[in-house]
Amino acid sequence: MTTLDDPDTPFAVLDRTRMDRNIDRLRARLDAAGVPLRLHVKTSKSLDVAAAVHRAGPGPVTVSTLAEAEYFADGGYTDILYAVGIEPRKLPRVLDLRRRGVDLAVLLDSAAQAEAVAKASAAAGDAIPALIEIDCDGHRGGIQPDDAALLDIGRLLHDGGAELRGVLDHAGESYYADTPETQRKAAQHERDVVVRAAERLRQAGLPAPVVSVGATPTAHAAADLTGVTEVRAGNYVFFDLVMAGIGVCTVDDLALSVVVTVIGHRTDKGWILTDGGWMATSRDRGTAVQKIDQGYGVVTDLHGRVYADLVMTGASQEHGTLAIRPGSRQVLPDLPIGSRVRILPNHACATAAQHREYHVIDGKPTPDAPAIEAVWPRHNGW
Amino acid sequence: MTTLDDPDTPFAVLDRTRMDRNIDRLRARLDAAGVPLRLHVKTSKSLDVAAAVHRAGPGPVTVSTLAEAEYFADGGYTDILYAVGIEPRKLPRVLDLRRRGVDLAVLLDSAAQAEAVAKASAAAGDAIPALIEIDCDGHRGGIQPDDAALLDIGRLLHDGGAELRGVLDHAGESYYADTPETQRKAAQHERDVVVRAAERLRQAGLPAPVVSVGATPTAHAAADLTGVTEVRAGNYVFFDLVMAGIGVCTVDDLALSVVVTVIGHRTDKGWILTDGGWMATSRDRGTAVQKIDQGYGVVTDLHGRVYADLVMTGASQEHGTLAIRPGSRQVLPDLPIGSRVRILPNHACATAAQHREYHVIDGKPTPDAPAIEAVWPRHNGW
Repeated sequence: MTTLDDPDTPFAVLDRTRMDRNIDRLRARLDAAGVPLRLHVKTSKSLDVAAAVHRAGPGPVTVSTLAEAEYFADGGYTDILYAVGIEPRKLPRVLDLRRRGVDLAVLLDSAAQAEAVAKASAAAGDAIPALIEIDCDGHRGGIQPDDAALLDIGRLLHDGGAELRGVLDHAGESYYADTPETQRKAAQHERDVVVRAAERLRQAGLPAPVVSVGATPTAHAAADLTGVTEVRAGNYVFFDLVMAGIGVCTVDDLALSVVVTVIGHRTDKGWILTDGGWMATSRDRGTAVQKIDQGYGVVTDLHGRVYADLVMTGASQEHGTLAIRPGSRQVLPDLPIGSRVRILPNHACATAAQHREYHVIDGKPTPDAPAIEAVWPRHNGW
Repeated sequence: MTTLDDPDTPFAVLDRTRMDRNIDRLRARLDAAGVPLRLHVKTSKSLDVAAAVHRAGPGPVTVSTLAEAEYFADGGYTDILYAVGIEPRKLPRVLDLRRRGVDLAVLLDSAAQAEAVAKASAAAGDAIPALIEIDCDGHRGGIQPDDAALLDIGRLLHDGGAELRGVLDHAGESYYADTPETQRKAAQHERDVVVRAAERLRQAGLPAPVVSVGATPTAHAAADLTGVTEVRAGNYVFFDLVMAGIGVCTVDDLALSVVVTVIGHRTDKGWILTDGGWMATSRDRGTAVQKIDQGYGVVTDLHGRVYADLVMTGASQEHGTLAIRPGSRQVLPDLPIGSRVRILPNHACATAAQHREYHVIDGKPTPDAPAIEAVWPRHNGW
């Protein structure tokens, strides 16, 4: 039996019990609201993880790259939304997937993109479904729900040979909302803005069957999803220290971590050195702007038990530095050369992206090092 | 003919002319000093890039992972230093490579590691060569050159069946030395400290044939390499904005970039949105602590000409935000949907790590989009 003591470090670990708990939590919320989930697979990029969400077989997914769309299509998924504004030169790959029977929809927020999608649809004799991106919080792209361009873009699609499928927004700023009340407000606003856009399209005689919202914080905070037809979320499957920092989960909910091994000590500096640097954790320092800066991550033992106030404070490419949090009275644990620990990440999407596979454990307490049940591949690239 | 206008974005580009210029520059310096280069391949992880340095065939290389060692061994390299403190459980892989005829040396800075290496050497009947890591600037691991442990570790190796090959240091803090004078001092100190450690070993009757120094800033600043037997450097092949920020190179020397495509505009915010986020550039923000914060990177056209004061100010997973640097009077360039630009990275090692391959251009001025001459794979993982 292989355990977390066996593979050469660093490597990524996935705690199946915690993951399933996270999945069940959001499922219960959305089932109660009567709104289906369109899982965002950019976090895990794993068919095995998606199967833990869509237990009855392939269901709706959101992707961040066409490589993900192709990988999930190969895995039997046929209802896919590519939720990054479409680059017109990528339309041939979109059409190739649609010819394979995948109902692949694209996203856009400009007349130029709408014209390109309409033109490609007409040329291929295939009405590419498109959602119009609406901005609800100034986070990234999208148009305002009251912008005149909304109807122009809608007509370019609808009249030009594409399929106007609806509207989408994403409360990206909710990652900085650190109270239940501000998260609830962000969720309400995310819902209100996109529903308003859908209503404007319908009032103009245009179709808007899909009204899509989503971000992990708002998915867990929404009190009112009236008029919303789907919720997108992906990070919640693993959660991370950024989500714990704003209270969407607790540190004990984190399902992803990285196993590293102690390779040295600097007693003069209070450092423990490991063989896991930023190549293993990513350079993401999302908690740097939160109330508690967790460095490059919180340190646990192989069973996932947190060492009080021990954090990964520094990272070179293949070296990590562990130290007691400044101001703490804790002392460094005794971790000789060869000891293994786990690092809980700031940002699960970024840390997972540094790895090719997940070593899956069941996460239940065991006297010895946790057994590795399976190794699940993930699919990076574009 | 394929050009930078053809592959789906984002993708990594390598400018061969700039790379060769960087390679020639350090070669000329080290040839004049009469000290050989041990190329660090952790930046490029590419046999093709290494071949541009070692033009006469495989030469000495430094690796940061055993996966790199195995990849370079497969490529015919037989003189390899694994320059991350050895985790004893990795010694079987070290011995496997040595059985294949690779002169693979390891690094360590503790009695526990020395005992493990000696024990593995004795058990295998193969004296594993080991360098002792010396600290010259408190950057990471290593012992002080006057530490009593130096001789203890040396004896454990030498008397225990391993091969005490010498000493090594790395002026990691020189990445923050932002004048020629402080870089020269860092180089002198890096040399003095490791030579002192070698002398102590020899005075105690122990061997120290190898005296290894190296960091990209000090390799370009060293005035005195007396007693040094090799210089390690890797980043210099590509260079990056961090190196330009401390004056080791100029922005015009950067050989690595990422091609991205414009997918949207937020005129209300002064943003251009692209399809290249942190997945394409990494989360590295190395210039954030420098005199000029370059965000996630400097923006150029497809020919590598910098857009004045246009930087990548924000990054989501697959979205980049371009904006004019705060305080500048420049205006946003006219870059419609579908326009392609290149992003020059903060940290070449981190950005390259996000990609599987390099699209190679010759870098000389052309009227049309630069032609892609070759696609060179890189080897990530552990």
